[in-house]
Amino acid sequence: MARTRTYATQGPKLPLAPFEIDRRPVGPRDVAIEIDFCGICHSDIHQVRDEWGGATFPMVPGHEIVGRVTRVGADVKRFRVGDHVGVGCMVDSCRTCPPCKADMEQFCQKGAAYTYNSTEMDRKTPTFGGYSTDVVVSEKFVLSVPATLDMAGAAPLLCAGITTYSPLRHWKVKAGDQVGVVGLGGLGHMGVKLAAAMGAQVTMLSTSKSKEADARRLGATGFALTSDPATFKRLAGKFDFILDTISANHDVQAYMGMLKLDGALVLVGVPPEPASIHASTFIFGRKTLSGSLIGGIAETQEMLDFCGQHGITADVEVIPVEKVDEAFERTVRSDVRYRFVIDIASLRKGG
Amino acid sequence: MARTRTYATQGPKLPLAPFEIDRRPVGPRDVAIEIDFCGICHSDIHQVRDEWGGATFPMVPGHEIVGRVTRVGADVKRFRVGDHVGVGCMVDSCRTCPPCKADMEQFCQKGAAYTYNSTEMDRKTPTFGGYSTDVVVSEKFVLSVPATLDMAGAAPLLCAGITTYSPLRHWKVKAGDQVGVVGLGGLGHMGVKLAAAMGAQVTMLSTSKSKEADARRLGATGFALTSDPATFKRLAGKFDFILDTISANHDVQAYMGMLKLDGALVLVGVPPEPASIHASTFIFGRKTLSGSLIGGIAETQEMLDFCGQHGITADVEVIPVEKVDEAFERTVRSDVRYRFVIDIASLRKGG
Repeated sequence: MARTRTYATQGPKLPLAPFEIDRRPVGPRDVAIEIDFCGICHSDIHQVRDEWGGATFPMVPGHEIVGRVTRVGADVKRFRVGDHVGVGCMVDSCRTCPPCKADMEQFCQKGAAYTYNSTEMDRKTPTFGGYSTDVVVSEKFVLSVPATLDMAGAAPLLCAGITTYSPLRHWKVKAGDQVGVVGLGGLGHMGVKLAAAMGAQVTMLSTSKSKEADARRLGATGFALTSDPATFKRLAGKFDFILDTISANHDVQAYMGMLKLDGALVLVGVPPEPASIHASTFIFGRKTLSGSLIGGIAETQEMLDFCGQHGITADVEVIPVEKVDEAFERTVRSDVRYRFVIDIASLRKGG
Repeated sequence: MARTRTYATQGPKLPLAPFEIDRRPVGPRDVAIEIDFCGICHSDIHQVRDEWGGATFPMVPGHEIVGRVTRVGADVKRFRVGDHVGVGCMVDSCRTCPPCKADMEQFCQKGAAYTYNSTEMDRKTPTFGGYSTDVVVSEKFVLSVPATLDMAGAAPLLCAGITTYSPLRHWKVKAGDQVGVVGLGGLGHMGVKLAAAMGAQVTMLSTSKSKEADARRLGATGFALTSDPATFKRLAGKFDFILDTISANHDVQAYMGMLKLDGALVLVGVPPEPASIHASTFIFGRKTLSGSLIGGIAETQEMLDFCGQHGITADVEVIPVEKVDEAFERTVRSDVRYRFVIDIASLRKGG
């Protein structure tokens, strides 16, 4: 058992504060990781505040983890001490159900073991996330991070990256396709970078004119203001694929009007209210509406390799761990371009 | 010009009554057809009553047409006098836009020429449908009806058949798939027959216990009562594909809960109210919701050939043309198993 420093909260209305936990001993198939950076995902805030219900405390958030291997179990084959590695939203799954066998652990029929606010597959041992100095994870759920990538910028790839990469691949976005990305936040800015790297013509669909320059810098060749009703007429029937990253209520049917014949709109955000769509929207143009949930482990590795080849990382603002509560507040206000990442060295030094 | 007897209405509140029209002379690429049978589609009633708006009168409804070729133009290659042929929902399209080039004339960017309550592609000449003794149609939009099929039973294949066949093929339903068909009416009964012939395991999802025996006779191996909330729990995650043929308002989200991972629910009916679906329904299981509109001409021929190979026709009640108003009333009450078909010989004799 290794004592590990973390930033944790003891209840939904309490701030994050230093807290020590024990990580498990390194088993034969385990990888021990010294964490360098951990991204702040909006879902960290929802879970810390128990806004989705069922939260368990103490809670150590964080599922956008990058670091270096410090020790490997006797049976570990893919990693050596010193390797740059990452851990995303999952640390285990049943490994035997059809989705797991098909490399879709995110849809494990027994429910994956999530990286925090969850349990190991024994359904007893709580899991603690990446706002911590160290973590021990089963080899199968450890990702290799290309050594050429900036480590801080690579951290958000483990959630924001795979959440946007997976639907782009599943719906077979290819060079020359017209892709709309709705919303320029943590997810949206990764969606623009990844779709552009796949060769798509990307249009940013945003309510905020001030984001146009950024969208173009990230790789968008078009920008349209969705606060202007004329946009929906002008771009009617334009897109092969729309990646909708908005978590606030919005008129999904209006966005579907911008799809081509056989186009797909895929939700990766979860607005509180249901989408309301008339059957004719689907029928006249055989359009589809769907959703996508992170990605499997093999696909996450594929995404990291793709990012390595294309030099893609997230745009990040690196903060010391003491500023995490302030970063939460700013994330809620969308006052970040585009992801906060905690420098875990600050946690290692502290206390 | 050939004088043609029809049953037509002169306005949205008037009954259908005998009416004479002129069919165009047979051009070099035209096929003249003596009509034997014409199905009564629920959309005939909506259009006759101008329930969708924009109706033009006089109106001769009918787009489930079968008959025999009586004359062909000099350049017609695929048909000879005496051939059994059919005409469906379309009689022309622009033939040059990308959907037309891709054999999806139903999505013609200029708008297809529909068989009635529409115009030819000149956007001036009105089109008149199959409640008539004869019709002249461009060869490209004439379908070959397998000679082995009962002509009366084949008529509804031209709309109800292709409307259900096309989504089953587009979403690649295959032998062994679990398919749910929602609603046992004109569309639903074709959906059951076609999906069963494709080798799928078909479950009829109906509010009416009295339809179970019929559903099983048509090829369903399962039946579930959707008026019982327990059905939605018992069948959660069961289906690869759900064909939803209901035109009344219903809880589409509840049906989506019966889809497997990566399953699709496809609407072919158009309920008045929009469907209301929470993003989580899509995201947890990567489920898709879509819609489908009849089918292209090549696909309609493929469907007819498939029906010829499998001996599939619609279950019909054949009526003389004088009973068409009564048949409309009974169709509105779903009092038909499962399609009325007008024996056009009764029109030819009458008047």
